Amino acid sequence: MAQATANVETVSGRGRIRRRAKVDASSPAIIAGVKREIPTYDIVSEEGLEIIEEKTDEILQEVGIDFRGDDVALEIWKQAGADVRGERVRFDKGHIRSLLKTVPNSFVMHGRNPERSTRLGREHIVFVPAYGSPFVSDLDQGRRYGTIKDFENLVKLAYSSPWIHHSGGTVCEPVDQPVNKRHLDMVYAHMNYSDMPFMGSVTTRDRALDSIEMAKILFGEKFADENCVISGNINMNSPLVYDGAMSGALRAYAEANQCPVVVPFVLSGATGPVTIAGAIAQGLAEVMVGVALGQLVRPGSPAIFGNFTTTVNLKAGSPSFGTAESVAASYVVGQIARRFDVPLRCSGGFTSSQCVDAQSTNESVNSLNAAILCGSHFILHAAGWMESALTMSYEKFVIDADYLGALHKFVKGVSLDDDQFASGAFAEVGPGNHFFGCDHTLANYEHAFYESELFSTMPFEQWEEEGSLDIAQRANLKWKQMLEDYQKPELDPGVDEELREFIQRRKSEMPDTWH
Amino acid sequence: MAQATANVETVSGRGRIRRRAKVDASSPAIIAGVKREIPTYDIVSEEGLEIIEEKTDEILQEVGIDFRGDDVALEIWKQAGADVRGERVRFDKGHIRSLLKTVPNSFVMHGRNPERSTRLGREHIVFVPAYGSPFVSDLDQGRRYGTIKDFENLVKLAYSSPWIHHSGGTVCEPVDQPVNKRHLDMVYAHMNYSDMPFMGSVTTRDRALDSIEMAKILFGEKFADENCVISGNINMNSPLVYDGAMSGALRAYAEANQCPVVVPFVLSGATGPVTIAGAIAQGLAEVMVGVALGQLVRPGSPAIFGNFTTTVNLKAGSPSFGTAESVAASYVVGQIARRFDVPLRCSGGFTSSQCVDAQSTNESVNSLNAAILCGSHFILHAAGWMESALTMSYEKFVIDADYLGALHKFVKGVSLDDDQFASGAFAEVGPGNHFFGCDHTLANYEHAFYESELFSTMPFEQWEEEGSLDIAQRANLKWKQMLEDYQKPELDPGVDEELREFIQRRKSEMPDTWH
Repeated sequence: MAQATANVETVSGRGRIRRRAKVDASSPAIIAGVKREIPTYDIVSEEGLEIIEEKTDEILQEVGIDFRGDDVALEIWKQAGADVRGERVRFDKGHIRSLLKTVPNSFVMHGRNPERSTRLGREHIVFVPAYGSPFVSDLDQGRRYGTIKDFENLVKLAYSSPWIHHSGGTVCEPVDQPVNKRHLDMVYAHMNYSDMPFMGSVTTRDRALDSIEMAKILFGEKFADENCVISGNINMNSPLVYDGAMSGALRAYAEANQCPVVVPFVLSGATGPVTIAGAIAQGLAEVMVGVALGQLVRPGSPAIFGNFTTTVNLKAGSPSFGTAESVAASYVVGQIARRFDVPLRCSGGFTSSQCVDAQSTNESVNSLNAAILCGSHFILHAAGWMESALTMSYEKFVIDADYLGALHKFVKGVSLDDDQFASGAFAEVGPGNHFFGCDHTLANYEHAFYESELFSTMPFEQWEEEGSLDIAQRANLKWKQMLEDYQKPELDPGVDEELREFIQRRKSEMPDTWH
Repeated sequence: MAQATANVETVSGRGRIRRRAKVDASSPAIIAGVKREIPTYDIVSEEGLEIIEEKTDEILQEVGIDFRGDDVALEIWKQAGADVRGERVRFDKGHIRSLLKTVPNSFVMHGRNPERSTRLGREHIVFVPAYGSPFVSDLDQGRRYGTIKDFENLVKLAYSSPWIHHSGGTVCEPVDQPVNKRHLDMVYAHMNYSDMPFMGSVTTRDRALDSIEMAKILFGEKFADENCVISGNINMNSPLVYDGAMSGALRAYAEANQCPVVVPFVLSGATGPVTIAGAIAQGLAEVMVGVALGQLVRPGSPAIFGNFTTTVNLKAGSPSFGTAESVAASYVVGQIARRFDVPLRCSGGFTSSQCVDAQSTNESVNSLNAAILCGSHFILHAAGWMESALTMSYEKFVIDADYLGALHKFVKGVSLDDDQFASGAFAEVGPGNHFFGCDHTLANYEHAFYESELFSTMPFEQWEEEGSLDIAQRANLKWKQMLEDYQKPELDPGVDEELREFIQRRKSEMPDTWH
């Protein structure tokens, strides 16, 4: 899969000969991602969903949302008929919901390699690496601040995994680069070391604009205006606040017809109420308003409805992940997103654990499975997440990615085609014998089960002889091998040059800042 | 919970003053187990289920089931109108299904402490320790053969966990005891060190009868004849064979109005076809026939419908657990059991991993969650399972048990009561502030979230200062503390003496055998 070659055409741009991905929104060649063939899981009744929507409306109407330091957003809301007093915006019942009607229920998120473009929404599932950690860790060097080298490594690992469909965004913070310039290096790393879709910067409106500008260089201005070629993860300041940096970035993506992934940050008991129903209603109010703002800026532009609801350990005050309560919340949010018929980002491979131990995967499998069954489409944090988002682990990245392969199998469900019942095999094998060598087994074994490259079923004695390596130690060998085997997907030299020039120019226009 | 005192009455038996548990099948005092308040997950359509039942009927009619070395069973089938040729028994379409109609859809499985009796079936869930491993392991001594001391320790740990409802059966093989006598020590350990329901021996019909005899001593003959006071895990020799030891034990439990848990052993690709649909149909055929035999022996006696379907690693020939395919199979089997309206044992905390690492809980959470969502009632192997059932791990036992606590919370679903929406809190806190100290948090925090005793959310620096212990190392401290804190539930001295006399007599009647 890593060797898939781009389907390219020659076009001219700024006086250079350039080769650009031939991409077509309706192309049947789109192959990345996986299509769900199993039902979602509904945890509450339709009646329950109506109560939740009512309570969400109450929050929007009675409490409202602050837009802090973004006069443009406040003006947009005024024009739209919302009740704006100072920075507080309140909304009539049903107003926000009516604005969500123009959100496309499915759209293509393009990669520069059209074979790795993905579709968002409906029955499509896209797995995306973890996002935003300042630290990285591996078994050799332990936990340390992330660097641009780590960032590039992680982009390469995602590119090399057959089970990850998207290059992600801030796969780790490259803390060795200036705060105000590192977005340029991150976006370039996604473009240069991968050919999958990717996310741009959101930390200020200017950095979002830089990211979008680079996407235009990569995909061509016209194509980029008509198609989704970049997305940005817009984090709210929960409870009920959009700061200007985030709403400014959100507007930048929407103006350019690009995709804001709008995500509340509801820690039940801290940034949201300690009861899950209230936390869900708050998160919904928050995301609905952000997505609606994008639709006011450019109706019909793509958007992803995000959710991030978890609990806090009330004794320690720290967030806890993969918990029973957060999993239940994901199921509810999935149901609401289906009522709105919008693409959903919800849940992921979360854990609070400080190392790659039995806690880490207990929590991350619990929340990853919830992502699948709740009907999430854009599964961010699907690989590598550690320590409540503070760390990206190389080992956990490849363990999670391997498990995503199993989930590819799981979402295909159980085939009940006649030959799957193996009637002939029962007659051939009969009571008391085994099916190892029977015709039906020989005809089907190759595609029967997902074959993990990391999960061990070997006899204990053999496992001991081979060094008693636990899965983290095996994963350590695996990611090194993957980096060694990595082959960079060719980037057109003309485009590359243009990107580098843009980056150099932008860097030269600003002094470095480090906080 | 471990300190719960038994509600006892004085009765006389064999000339001694005895105190026996006051148990009443309709008692509202039953408190053990947890009641599901969330829906199950349906992975295939009703139409799909009909196809599966049809294919199951085909296997029963065309291939049939062998009863090997059990003339009594063959005679029962002849009398019932089945097609018996030699040891092969074939069944007309619908015959077996009609025999399942007398299985109680819910019944009480009694503990000697009535407060720890459990209900099986419908919305009730009972968590039971892992079963049958010849090895045990802990971080101090590593992997080694199990002993009666280990067995007793594991009974004590289950008794001490607030999240385990049943003492289990062969929690490990006490390999230091003679093969033909260890069942007496095992059953006694459950009776002596715990007061919860437990399982007896199944390895021969005689050992089943001994186990039932001991249960009669504990509960009184009349009570034991009228109520479920012991159960036996009847493993088939898949594909499609009951050997005489197992069908003889099955009959012994049913004759005594006790509960056989009838379980196929379908390793898709080895003891069953390599395609999941066929493996499911086979397992259904197998379990249906066993449960039906029990109903012929004593109509209306309790039974549990069992399932055990997993895949084999086709390269290695070894079973693999917690896989995508086995999880999907559990969902299907759950749906079928609901159609039959019978209590179900399905899935559990399975893993192939050789140690308590990130693989082990990835797999066991995957399969435990499937047990919950597929609607399993009797969740055997809920704690401690390691290495494809070869090992019981002390550390994994307490990690799993802790996670069972989270599942207790999860199955309660999301409350949508008005106060759960925290309307007042939003008004009090407002945008941008936190909910830590608000009235609503103070009123609700105590019961808001499941509080794990093992899963860590602490800051990395603090975790490092405290020794960088992973969850297995923390679990190692935990189980030792639990054993230290363990307090034996009082067993009536008269009953105890009678049990000991029975055991001594039975042991004296047989020379030791060691294989």
